[in-house]
Amino acid sequence: MNTLVAIIGAGPAGLLLSHLLYLKGIDSVVLETRTREDIESTIRAGVLEQGTMDILEAAGVGARMRSEGALHHGIELAFGGKRHRIDLSELTGRAITVYAQHEVIKDLVAARLAADGQILFEVSDVSVHGIDSEQPSVHFTHEGQPQQLIADFVIGCDGFHGIARPCIPDTLRRDYQRIYPFGWFGILVESEPSSEELIYAQHERGFALISTRSPTVQRHYFQCDPKDDVDNWSDDRIWSELHTRLESSDGWKLKEGKIFQKNIIGMRSFVSTPMQQGRLFLAGDAAHIVPPTGAKGMNLAVADVRLLSLALDEFYKDGKQGGLEKYTETALKRVWRAEHFSWWMTSLLHRFEDATPFQQALQRAELEYVVSSRAAATVLAENYVGLPFA
Amino acid sequence: MNTLVAIIGAGPAGLLLSHLLYLKGIDSVVLETRTREDIESTIRAGVLEQGTMDILEAAGVGARMRSEGALHHGIELAFGGKRHRIDLSELTGRAITVYAQHEVIKDLVAARLAADGQILFEVSDVSVHGIDSEQPSVHFTHEGQPQQLIADFVIGCDGFHGIARPCIPDTLRRDYQRIYPFGWFGILVESEPSSEELIYAQHERGFALISTRSPTVQRHYFQCDPKDDVDNWSDDRIWSELHTRLESSDGWKLKEGKIFQKNIIGMRSFVSTPMQQGRLFLAGDAAHIVPPTGAKGMNLAVADVRLLSLALDEFYKDGKQGGLEKYTETALKRVWRAEHFSWWMTSLLHRFEDATPFQQALQRAELEYVVSSRAAATVLAENYVGLPFA
Repeated sequence: MNTLVAIIGAGPAGLLLSHLLYLKGIDSVVLETRTREDIESTIRAGVLEQGTMDILEAAGVGARMRSEGALHHGIELAFGGKRHRIDLSELTGRAITVYAQHEVIKDLVAARLAADGQILFEVSDVSVHGIDSEQPSVHFTHEGQPQQLIADFVIGCDGFHGIARPCIPDTLRRDYQRIYPFGWFGILVESEPSSEELIYAQHERGFALISTRSPTVQRHYFQCDPKDDVDNWSDDRIWSELHTRLESSDGWKLKEGKIFQKNIIGMRSFVSTPMQQGRLFLAGDAAHIVPPTGAKGMNLAVADVRLLSLALDEFYKDGKQGGLEKYTETALKRVWRAEHFSWWMTSLLHRFEDATPFQQALQRAELEYVVSSRAAATVLAENYVGLPFA
Repeated sequence: MNTLVAIIGAGPAGLLLSHLLYLKGIDSVVLETRTREDIESTIRAGVLEQGTMDILEAAGVGARMRSEGALHHGIELAFGGKRHRIDLSELTGRAITVYAQHEVIKDLVAARLAADGQILFEVSDVSVHGIDSEQPSVHFTHEGQPQQLIADFVIGCDGFHGIARPCIPDTLRRDYQRIYPFGWFGILVESEPSSEELIYAQHERGFALISTRSPTVQRHYFQCDPKDDVDNWSDDRIWSELHTRLESSDGWKLKEGKIFQKNIIGMRSFVSTPMQQGRLFLAGDAAHIVPPTGAKGMNLAVADVRLLSLALDEFYKDGKQGGLEKYTETALKRVWRAEHFSWWMTSLLHRFEDATPFQQALQRAELEYVVSSRAAATVLAENYVGLPFA
């Protein structure tokens, strides 16, 4: 099997890259270890930056996002029994759309297949070869048969636990990491939204987030011990904890409903550099992870593949390698900005068991400042909606 | 001896409070353990916020500050071999004046004495009594004689190591503190200024600050081990260290000169609350300390005594206690903002021995952000010039 660009992973990064390349007339094949049903139903992130929305629109896959996603012009910060609105649009002229990641995946899969794009699901035994040559290849098993996909480039969009990043030898790679001493307990709830906008709550018992996936499905989180077990949490205990952390003096009430999923996610900051070795390029979670507080993960993946699609287009159209050679440097600027923002927003809102009284007081002082200074609110807002592409 | 307000400490806080009360017709006496020559010659802080300048002007002690101080409209951040200007005036409409603290003290002492104000120097054995009564008193020795100063109020402006704060029992007080694992090595140099504006430098070897006290005396600092000894640092070694940390690709050069003073100062964040117990009130360093990075120490002291002068005026004029009762709450809002800013600027610019590679990369990402985002630069600028008084 031959193609120009072999893409490992059918997440938002891999699928969008394949589609962006198709629109520029560049052939690619996407390899995915899971089933189509699986990737189209796993509920993950849900906040799209303005720039992400613009890219999806321009790629012709924005129709359902526009009609079914919810455009949000603000978010709320809750602390000390009060809610404070950060008016994203007024502060930045931009907005976000709440539209679930698996819906983006559905739209991209549909678009790829409608254009006869090749996505091979349920592949296994994936390995990458010859990245330092001009003809790298991906070996894998599909429908019981060993296969070779020979390409000009291999793009690793296979996430943090994928096989692509380890193809760059440890001796050439530098990893930066922080693992946070807490996780998020996430629930999916059958109910109408409790709030028109997302609520990020800081409380002495820990962070909580009220968010939404659709008019009938809500997604709430609260900070927990990352080693806790969902079985320790009855529905009653979960609601009690959320009510406590979101206690508000202004009469706002959290709407309960049937909890149909519970899970615990760890919190990690991670950056691997370089994001390229020879003809292998990494994009999205394969190269970097942010804690979910700033809602940056999927958006960073989209920003990475935007760069790659421009660089590959330049390569095939004009024979220029500049964009490819500068990929790591260019991508990492945005990555580090998002890493810093995600770390900052995580630090601002979470309970740290080892925080001294001085550090706790600083956290509160910073929250008070963010909601009272236009400049400080703009710092939050411009990062949350996403800085413009360079 | 009787007065209305007994003030312990003839630093900027005590002297300015005494003068502000005099302007409102309220008698006070200032007690100071040191000599006049001593307080008028100890070189300390040197950056006055716009609000501090305005208060000194309004109190009629701004003439020399205006003529001899240097109005600065910006500061520079240096890192990665480049300098980046933060245009304070363009971002905030305000500015700072570089004018040494001991010059402010000279102006205030002169103004107090010209108005027959009472400042008793070289007092000793100072103790405070009866703060929970309506007639507290200060006992002390002056010119060999034991004395009692009976007043309506006692104001502790006697600094971090003073006797006033411990008069509030530990059981009623809560202290917040952080001691930083580094200090500042400060030098006074006979030379003309190396730069028109202050330069705050971040370098892998540690922080450095190029500042000025007058057209002929410069004040430079560099981060050091707080337990180091000035005798370990020859002039050559000091210049070499400063040159390295301020290395710049744009041809800027540090001007050397005769070093006539060397000292090492520790770095501490500290807040004690409440700032009042009965008829005893604390102001300035007696209640809170910031690391010097944000240049907030003297300015906070001025903000505290501004509040006290307004509250005492209201008390004597209208018999109202509201301002006095709310003093702790009102003052602490500004204090915690300044504590957070000073901690933030310290964290942004210093080398932390225990920082992980991830934290080091975040520090650099934040520096890049501060000099590339107008909102982020405004956050620095509006805090540096001082937020408006409430």
